[in-house]
Amino acid sequence: MTKNDITTEPLTGSKKIYVQGKLHDIKVAMREVSLSPTTHSNGLVEENQSVTLYDTSGPYTDPEVNIDIKKGLPQLRKEWILNRGDVEQLNEFSSEYCNMRNADKSIDHIRFEHIKKPLKAKEGKNISQMHYAKNGIITPEMEYVAIRENQRTDYLIIQRTKYSEILTQQHAGNSFGANTPKGIITSEFVRNEIAAGRAIIPANINHPESEPMIIGRNFLVKINTNIGNSIVTSGVEEEVEKAVWSCRWGGDTLMDLSTGKNIHETREWIIRNCPVPVGTVPIYQALEKVNGKAEDLTWEIFRDTLIEQAEQGVDYFTIHAGVLLRYVPLTAKRITGIVSRGGSIMAKWCLAHHKENFLYTHFEEMCQIMKDYDVAFSLGDGLRPGCIADANDEAQFAELKTLGELTKIAWKHNVQTIIEGPGHVPLNLIKENMELQLEYCNEAPFYTLGPLTTDIAPGYDHITSAIGAALIGWYGTAMLCYVTPKEHLGLPNKKDVKDGVITYKIAAHAADLAKGHPGAQFRDNALSKARFEFRWNDQFNLSFDPDTAYKFHDETLPKNEAKVSHFCSMCGPHFCSMKISHEVRDYADNMNDKESEYIKKGLEEKAEEFKSSGTELYL
Amino acid sequence: MTKNDITTEPLTGSKKIYVQGKLHDIKVAMREVSLSPTTHSNGLVEENQSVTLYDTSGPYTDPEVNIDIKKGLPQLRKEWILNRGDVEQLNEFSSEYCNMRNADKSIDHIRFEHIKKPLKAKEGKNISQMHYAKNGIITPEMEYVAIRENQRTDYLIIQRTKYSEILTQQHAGNSFGANTPKGIITSEFVRNEIAAGRAIIPANINHPESEPMIIGRNFLVKINTNIGNSIVTSGVEEEVEKAVWSCRWGGDTLMDLSTGKNIHETREWIIRNCPVPVGTVPIYQALEKVNGKAEDLTWEIFRDTLIEQAEQGVDYFTIHAGVLLRYVPLTAKRITGIVSRGGSIMAKWCLAHHKENFLYTHFEEMCQIMKDYDVAFSLGDGLRPGCIADANDEAQFAELKTLGELTKIAWKHNVQTIIEGPGHVPLNLIKENMELQLEYCNEAPFYTLGPLTTDIAPGYDHITSAIGAALIGWYGTAMLCYVTPKEHLGLPNKKDVKDGVITYKIAAHAADLAKGHPGAQFRDNALSKARFEFRWNDQFNLSFDPDTAYKFHDETLPKNEAKVSHFCSMCGPHFCSMKISHEVRDYADNMNDKESEYIKKGLEEKAEEFKSSGTELYL
Repeated sequence: MTKNDITTEPLTGSKKIYVQGKLHDIKVAMREVSLSPTTHSNGLVEENQSVTLYDTSGPYTDPEVNIDIKKGLPQLRKEWILNRGDVEQLNEFSSEYCNMRNADKSIDHIRFEHIKKPLKAKEGKNISQMHYAKNGIITPEMEYVAIRENQRTDYLIIQRTKYSEILTQQHAGNSFGANTPKGIITSEFVRNEIAAGRAIIPANINHPESEPMIIGRNFLVKINTNIGNSIVTSGVEEEVEKAVWSCRWGGDTLMDLSTGKNIHETREWIIRNCPVPVGTVPIYQALEKVNGKAEDLTWEIFRDTLIEQAEQGVDYFTIHAGVLLRYVPLTAKRITGIVSRGGSIMAKWCLAHHKENFLYTHFEEMCQIMKDYDVAFSLGDGLRPGCIADANDEAQFAELKTLGELTKIAWKHNVQTIIEGPGHVPLNLIKENMELQLEYCNEAPFYTLGPLTTDIAPGYDHITSAIGAALIGWYGTAMLCYVTPKEHLGLPNKKDVKDGVITYKIAAHAADLAKGHPGAQFRDNALSKARFEFRWNDQFNLSFDPDTAYKFHDETLPKNEAKVSHFCSMCGPHFCSMKISHEVRDYADNMNDKESEYIKKGLEEKAEEFKSSGTELYL
Repeated sequence: MTKNDITTEPLTGSKKIYVQGKLHDIKVAMREVSLSPTTHSNGLVEENQSVTLYDTSGPYTDPEVNIDIKKGLPQLRKEWILNRGDVEQLNEFSSEYCNMRNADKSIDHIRFEHIKKPLKAKEGKNISQMHYAKNGIITPEMEYVAIRENQRTDYLIIQRTKYSEILTQQHAGNSFGANTPKGIITSEFVRNEIAAGRAIIPANINHPESEPMIIGRNFLVKINTNIGNSIVTSGVEEEVEKAVWSCRWGGDTLMDLSTGKNIHETREWIIRNCPVPVGTVPIYQALEKVNGKAEDLTWEIFRDTLIEQAEQGVDYFTIHAGVLLRYVPLTAKRITGIVSRGGSIMAKWCLAHHKENFLYTHFEEMCQIMKDYDVAFSLGDGLRPGCIADANDEAQFAELKTLGELTKIAWKHNVQTIIEGPGHVPLNLIKENMELQLEYCNEAPFYTLGPLTTDIAPGYDHITSAIGAALIGWYGTAMLCYVTPKEHLGLPNKKDVKDGVITYKIAAHAADLAKGHPGAQFRDNALSKARFEFRWNDQFNLSFDPDTAYKFHDETLPKNEAKVSHFCSMCGPHFCSMKISHEVRDYADNMNDKESEYIKKGLEEKAEEFKSSGTELYL
C-alpha cells in the first residue's frame, strides 16, 4: 500500500483551516470555501464572505501533512490523554489472542509495522469522557467538538418569526435555543450533555489519531459508515481506502464489520489510519474464533476479544445484550424472523444452551473493561424488524426496554452509551420508535439503521432508508447508520460508499434544518444566494459533492462561459425564471422616477390592503 | 423513428394481463409476477401465489400489440367517449395557430402523419368526469381506475392490531377503511370522490390513447414525470422514447415542458404515443408566440393556445392564475425571488402593465374551454419557494388562498381541478403546507414538486426531494412531481429519468404504506418472504427495478448457483442472520421429542411470564 492508493486532494473548492481553542491549546480542523463577489445590475460589487464547514476528512485533505499509511496518522490526542495522568502504558497486550497473532511470523507481511504498546486506566481510575463530565471537567475533546459543531453561525442566518417560533416550541426544554447562549454551542453545554448521558464522545485512549466528535440529539446529526470484508470478497488495501474515502465525503464514524480471516490485522491498519471513531461488533470475531459455531461461544472467548479490540483502539462496541432467551419465541411469527447477525448468533446460543444470553449476565464485567479504555457501548438491537410487516412488534420493544435497563448499569460505571435502532419501519410507525427509545433509555443517544420505509426497492435502499433516516433524525435520533445501494444485494464498492455517504449527509442535514441547529441553515442560504446570482462555481463548491455537480453541469453546457451564464440548460436563455425574477426587480428600479414612484407606491398599497383585509379576497 | 428506438420488452419477470370489468366491457391492464415455490427444510413444498401489480407501461410491454409510433397507440377510450353521445367531431381545428402550422408544408417532414379531427362537447353539454360523477354516472373510466387501484388485496395481507389501530385513527373520516367496504376500492367510491372534488381522472376526449388513472389522496399516491426539449438541447425522437421510458418505470402522468421550436409537432407525437395523461404549461408556448417578451402576451394569444392544445389532447393545464399583482412585492425580500417560470412570466406581465394577471381576470372563460374537452386545471404555484429560507412565506400562502377561490369557480363549472405545491421546504414546515392546502382549497387534490428538504445537494436533488415527497404524500398529497438528479444542473438523460421515476415510486409507495392503502403492503410482504426464503429471483422480480437488482447481485456473485444460495456476499455463508434464523427455528423442531417439548414449553412459559410481568424486568 502506498500513498498513491489513497485519496488525498482537498475537496474541490475547499481548503483546510484550523481554529484555535481557548480553554486548551488545540487546533480544530475545518474546511473553508471562498466565494466570488456578486456583481449587481447597477454595477455595484458585493463581497461574499467565505463559508467554514464541518470537516470529517482528517489530515488526508491537508496538503501540508505527509500521509504515510504504513506509519499511520499523527496522534492528535496523545498529549491530551497523557497529560491527564490517569493512564499507564502496558508492556504487553492483555489479550491472549492478540499476543498469539503478534507472535505469528507467517503473517508478518500483512501486519502493520508500528504497533504501539497499549494504554490502560491506572488501577482504580475511570478515564471516560462521561466520568470527566460528571466531575465538572471540560476536556480538550469537549472543547474540540464545541468549536467544531458551530461551524460559522455569524453568516447569513435568516431568522423569520414563524420559523423561530416553531423551533422554540419543538425544542422547549432541551433545544439549542433554550440551553445555549445565543444559539452557540459552548464547551460547558457539551460537558453538561455528556454528564447527563444525552451525548457521547467516542474516544478510546488507544485511538489518539481520531478527531473528537459528539453524538447526541442536541448536536448535528451524525452518520456512520460501514466497511468490512467478508470471506467472499474484498481485501485489506481496499478497506483502508474505503475508510479514507467514506470520511472524505462526510462519514462521522466508521464501523469495521469484517468477518473474514486476518480480521485482527485489517483492523489495526484501519484504526491507525482512521481520523474518525471506529466501531465494531466483537461477536463477529468471537464467532470466527469458534469456527462459526454459535453454540461454542463462551464469555471467556468474548471477554478476550473485547480486550483485544479495546487495546487496538476501537471506540465503540455493538453489544447484543438485550436478546434475552424469553424474547426469542416472540419472533416466531415474523415474516423475516431475526435479521441482525449478532442477534441471531445470540438467539442460537441461548436456545442451544437454554441459558440466558451471556452478554446480559456478564454486563457489569463488561462495564469494567469499557471504562479502562473509554470504549462506548452501542447497545445492539438484535431483534430489529427486517421488513415493514415486522416493525414495532413485541419482540422489538421488549428488547428496547432491556437496553434501557442496561443503560442505567453502564451509566452507574460512567460508561458512555448509545442505543441502536431499526431497521425496516413504515413512515407512520417511526415516531413511536423515537418516543419509546427516549422513554425506555432515559434519553441516551439513539443510533438507527435507516429505517427503510419500504421493502420493495433493492438497489435503491440508500433512498428507501434515507427517507426514514431524515424523519427519525428530525424526531431526535443522534446518529444514522448509512445504507448503500448494494444493501440486500452485495458488498459496496467505492461508488456505492460515496452514494451512501452523500445520501445520508442529506438525511442528516435535512434533520438539522428541521431541528434548527444553529450551524445548519447558513450553508443552504449561501448556496441559494449563489444559485440565484448565477455564481455557478460557488454553488457547486458549497454542495455536498462538487465533483458531481460540475460533471452534471458540463454534460449539457461544457464550456467555461456557461459557468458565468445567467441561464442554464434546463430552460434555456429566454425562460429562466431566476433571470426573469431579476428583471422584475430591475424593471421597477429602472423606470423613470415618477412612474416608478407611482408603481412602487401602488404595489405597497396593494400589499398593505391585502395584509389588512384578512382572509377575504375579492375575485 | 422506428419501433427499434422504443423500449418494448415486458419488465423482467413480469407478463401483461388484463382484468375484465363488471359494469362495463373494459379490460384493465396489469402485470403479473409469477413466483417460485418455497421448499421448507422438512421437504414440504409450498406454492407462492403470483402477484398482480399496477402497471403504467401501456401497450408497449404487451408483446401481442404491434407498436408503430408513426400511427400512435390504439384508441382505448374512443368508443367509451362516442357511446356517451355528447360529443361531436369538428371538421377543422378551432385554433388559428394550429391551422397555420398544419398548413405549413415546410414542416411536413416532422409532422405526425395521422392527425385526427378533434372532438368537442356538443353545444350546451358538459362532458367532464366530474359532471358525470355529480350526476351519479359511473363511467368506464371510473370502473377502470377502481379495478386498477386494488391490484391484489387477497394476498399476504398481514394485519397486526397495533398497525390497524394507528391507521384507523389517522384516517378517521376519509380513510380507505371508513369509506370502502372491507378496504376494497369500488367504482362507486371512485365516483363519489370525483363528485366531491377530492379526486380527478384527467381524461381529455382527444387523448383516447391514455389508460384512465385517478389522482386523489384516498387512492395510491401518483407520480408525474417531466420531459421537454429546450432551445439548448434534445430533439423530438428522444422525447417520445423518454415518455415511453418514464411510463415503463412507473410514471403515472407526463408533463411536456418543451420550450423550443416545433413545440406543436413534438406534442402531437408525444400525445399520440403516450399511455398516460399528458399535462402542459400553456404559457410557455404562448410566450414563444410573442418571441419571449412577457409584456406582449395577451389573453387572445393565450386563449388560442389553450384551444390548440386541448384539441391535441392535453389532459391537464398548469395555469398560474394565482400570481396576483399585489402579491409580487411580497417576494422582494426572498433569497431566491420567484423561481417558477410561469410565475415569473406572469409577474413580469403584471408589473409591465400594472394590471391584474389576465389568467385571473379571464378564469371563467377558461372554465368553458376546459369543460368542452374535459381538460383539468392544475392551478400552478407561481410563487412557490425556491430555497429553504423562503419556505412557507406570506407570498406563497397568499397565492394558495387565491387558488382555493379559483377552485370553487372551476367546480361551479364541473371542471376537474388539482392544486400545485412547493418546492423547497424543510421537514418541519411540510405539514403546514398540506394542512393549509386542504383548508384553503376544500380538499382538491394536492400535487407537489418534491419538496426538496435542503438546498445543498445539487446532483442529488431526486433524493433531497424524495424525502419531502414521501412525507407530504403521507400527509395527503395525491401526486408527486418527480425531480431528477440533474435538477438545477442540466437536462435529464434516460438514466436520470429512470433514477427520478424509481426514486419517486419509492416516495409514493412509502406514503401508501404509511396511509395503509389496501393495495400497498402485500407487495412488500411478498418480497420480504422471498428474501427470507432466499428466493433471489422472486425478490428481484418483485422489486421496482429488477434489472438493477440482478446487476448488483451479479457484481459480487455472478454465478447462477448464487441465485439459489442460502447466503449472499454481504455476510458470506457462515454469518447470514436469515440463515441462522432458520436454523434457530429448525433447531427447536429437530431436537429429540422430549427435550424439544421441554424447551418449547419453557420458552412459552418464559414468554408468558414476560408478557404478564408488565414493565418491570429483572436484570
